Amino acid sequence: MSNKAGEVAEPRRRMSTDQRREQLLAIGAVLFAEQAYDDVWIEQVAELAGVSRGLLYHYFPTKRDFFAAVVRVERDRMLQLTNPDPALPTYDRAAAALDAYLGFAESHAHGFRAFHRAAASGDPEIRQIYEEGIAAHQHRILEAFEAEATALEWPWSPEIARLAVHGWMAFVVTVCLEWLDNPGVTRDEVRELCARALFGAVGQDPER
Amino acid sequence: MSNKAGEVAEPRRRMSTDQRREQLLAIGAVLFAEQAYDDVWIEQVAELAGVSRGLLYHYFPTKRDFFAAVVRVERDRMLQLTNPDPALPTYDRAAAALDAYLGFAESHAHGFRAFHRAAASGDPEIRQIYEEGIAAHQHRILEAFEAEATALEWPWSPEIARLAVHGWMAFVVTVCLEWLDNPGVTRDEVRELCARALFGAVGQDPER
Repeated sequence: MSNKAGEVAEPRRRMSTDQRREQLLAIGAVLFAEQAYDDVWIEQVAELAGVSRGLLYHYFPTKRDFFAAVVRVERDRMLQLTNPDPALPTYDRAAAALDAYLGFAESHAHGFRAFHRAAASGDPEIRQIYEEGIAAHQHRILEAFEAEATALEWPWSPEIARLAVHGWMAFVVTVCLEWLDNPGVTRDEVRELCARALFGAVGQDPER
Repeated sequence: MSNKAGEVAEPRRRMSTDQRREQLLAIGAVLFAEQAYDDVWIEQVAELAGVSRGLLYHYFPTKRDFFAAVVRVERDRMLQLTNPDPALPTYDRAAAALDAYLGFAESHAHGFRAFHRAAASGDPEIRQIYEEGIAAHQHRILEAFEAEATALEWPWSPEIARLAVHGWMAFVVTVCLEWLDNPGVTRDEVRELCARALFGAVGQDPER
């Protein structure tokens, strides 16, 4: 079966509205992961999904709406899958969260990359979706450390703690994106590196 | 004296070509620091400089050329002003470089912010100018640490060292940009935080 553009497409399957939406968003995650926003064509999405452009526009009226939906879905998925058991002690919870985060980046590399494309978006609304995701992560980490501030002999003000956690999130994101491009480094090594940076920045002062 | 738009402008001064270029780039640093790329109007630059749009276009044919020039100049200035004395021992050199970097961010906040706008540019050429600056910094740091790998009991492969330094640069940039917006934290505290994160990530393993 071929579509109007003469390219081979999968036969259209009957999908529910939710299934179709999910399929389109999954295709979007791949395309936005691999290409800059400006280089993604909404027509390509319709072709890959084997649907008409009209149907695609029914789900997402503009490319911007489509990208916003991809970013939102990937953000929510990430936050959901990296939420550690609150019953764990702080150190174990941090380790479990970091491990879940790296596992998520590895197994959902497209979604992870597509989500982080939004960091460079010139569109304030899309940046906001992104920043809400980053802020939610930061909030979780800060909360965990604040609860343990005494045990960690935390020497700093809340402002510095915030800077430390924000800086560390940037550290982890940068390391993860680069690791996905160069998977020669193991996940254990990446986890160790990230944990060391975090405990270096916020943990006990090793020498003083 | 007022220009055609009826706004008050400084009387036109006779400037050399180099002076005029420098003036325009300084205005560009302020505008691109305070606003997203899309929100900067080249006409505003001409108005602030008290020159005709024709003269501005003579120096920078497009807004893209103008932004690229601002980013390039700020990158080169930063690299020049943060290059520590190679005769210093590694730890002192790292401390001096970090101190120079924070001093630069503080005293050239507009240029620093304008430069980092380029990170979010959708334009591959502008991103390249930016990434060359980041890469030059990373290279300096890696070189210094590689020379001292044994003294630091460096336990890792060159790939992990690279990830560590790339991640740490992201940490420092994030912390600096946020610190400039919230200067309640002192420069000493920011330096201490950044140094701890670096030595946490790449330094001696405190406990194992």
